[in-house]
Amino acid sequence: MTDLTIIGAGPAGLTAAIYAARRNLTFRIFEAGEAGGYMLKAGTIENYPGFPEAQSGAELASRMKKQAEKFKAKIEKKNVSAIQKDENGFLVITQDGEAVECSTVLIATGAQYRRLNIKNEEKFIGHGLSYCSTCDGPLFRGKTIAVVGGGDKPVESALYLEGIAKKVYLVQKKTEQATDKELAARLEKSKIEKLWDHMVVEVKGGAKLESAVFKELKTGKEKEIALDGLFLEIGAMPGTELTKGCGIKTDADGYIIVNHKQETSCPGVYAAGDVTGRVKQISVAVGDAAVAVMSAKEYLKK
Amino acid sequence: MTDLTIIGAGPAGLTAAIYAARRNLTFRIFEAGEAGGYMLKAGTIENYPGFPEAQSGAELASRMKKQAEKFKAKIEKKNVSAIQKDENGFLVITQDGEAVECSTVLIATGAQYRRLNIKNEEKFIGHGLSYCSTCDGPLFRGKTIAVVGGGDKPVESALYLEGIAKKVYLVQKKTEQATDKELAARLEKSKIEKLWDHMVVEVKGGAKLESAVFKELKTGKEKEIALDGLFLEIGAMPGTELTKGCGIKTDADGYIIVNHKQETSCPGVYAAGDVTGRVKQISVAVGDAAVAVMSAKEYLKK
Repeated sequence: MTDLTIIGAGPAGLTAAIYAARRNLTFRIFEAGEAGGYMLKAGTIENYPGFPEAQSGAELASRMKKQAEKFKAKIEKKNVSAIQKDENGFLVITQDGEAVECSTVLIATGAQYRRLNIKNEEKFIGHGLSYCSTCDGPLFRGKTIAVVGGGDKPVESALYLEGIAKKVYLVQKKTEQATDKELAARLEKSKIEKLWDHMVVEVKGGAKLESAVFKELKTGKEKEIALDGLFLEIGAMPGTELTKGCGIKTDADGYIIVNHKQETSCPGVYAAGDVTGRVKQISVAVGDAAVAVMSAKEYLKK
Repeated sequence: MTDLTIIGAGPAGLTAAIYAARRNLTFRIFEAGEAGGYMLKAGTIENYPGFPEAQSGAELASRMKKQAEKFKAKIEKKNVSAIQKDENGFLVITQDGEAVECSTVLIATGAQYRRLNIKNEEKFIGHGLSYCSTCDGPLFRGKTIAVVGGGDKPVESALYLEGIAKKVYLVQKKTEQATDKELAARLEKSKIEKLWDHMVVEVKGGAKLESAVFKELKTGKEKEIALDGLFLEIGAMPGTELTKGCGIKTDADGYIIVNHKQETSCPGVYAAGDVTGRVKQISVAVGDAAVAVMSAKEYLKK
């Protein structure tokens, strides 16, 4: 019987391991992919407090992993398929059939950026193709890039990237201005080249992304534009398949609803990081995970 | 007219400065004491994610300050005496009489640990006298220490410190067990020496604390015990004098009430760090401050 099972070893999961170990909780930590989570895909991190010099996401991930391991965390490469309620607590079921008995659970499974499913998309992720302008924007200083997506958020991203890149295209399917007036005005004043009525159909390149093919929707005409980077600003999906077993409540976008103690609607189950609806930032994942462990410790005392 | 005024330059305030600068907000940041806040008093920090090697609070404070300054933050040594509503936003009034016009405000004024007001108390803070066992406990490995305070929390602290120190005294005014049964049982099994019916009246020493004088309440008899460390576990008071001007709501203990966006009850005013009721941890202050700036940025767009 373990005090806590941590599902996910991104910044939230690794922080939870550090806190759980230091608070003398017994715990296991499972990660389906690599320790570090989406942080691994961040090219340059400038805003995680404590590091005046920029570092790569891989570097920060490695530091957090080392720290968790220093406190005897053993990150187990396992996919978790379900969480079930049990008379004594919970059963965390792994894909290889193990049923881990535990008193509390932390869901730190992050979010997955939505894919557009265009040709070569997977191949160029992290090699010119990105889903997060605030994460990867600074990598494209002085370069030519395009932002794809509808609504306000891609406009904001394009405006933000304009201050970094040499040339920015904004690609939207509809002939539309941003709904936000001030954004629309800023877009009008900017040098961003608008490709309204266009969609992206393919990305091309060698080791790195070199161009993208855009199709004009009215005419069906395609054109290829040379690019160093392409940002697909089409949202994210939280990793919340695990909420079903315990009836954990999620919001309209599927993110797990937590209170200020990181408690979910299921007592004994906590969530932290990108799987909750808070801002997708490493600092936030880290802070919320610390709170989650403190709350779990409180719960265990009862 | 500044977008944001940040009051306090502890981990929350410094993080807010980093985020505000990177999000192109104009801002000012005021700190009445030294940049770093209570973090400066933490002897050893092992649990701030990203640092596998322990560091001192002063080191981490210096790193965060350097990072904020890299993003052009100018920390102004000023005491803020009030926040007032204004037709265009807020006026932040400094003690030297300046009235800073701004659209949003972040209160990151931290909390002040309560003083017991015994003889020599101020002199030994950071030199053997501490208010936070989880912060400073590891400094007393193999040493002799005493924990002073009533209720469950000092018992927890004493039990935690027993694993670190050579000898632990627990000093309480009342003849009482911890109210929590499991805690009481653990205390009974421990080697902690209980000084029930006692209070501390004085601390003594040279450059460092060397002993404390305890008085037995029933008899009035005093005894001096040689100590390396004394922990006063008597709670904290948030720095919330600034809430009055705008009618910002606080909880029963005086902490500012915020929602998951770090919004206070006054639109445009945010709070993060120890001044809110969340766990007093650097990681939490940092994450919540990042959220606060994102929320302020959203608010400014409207």
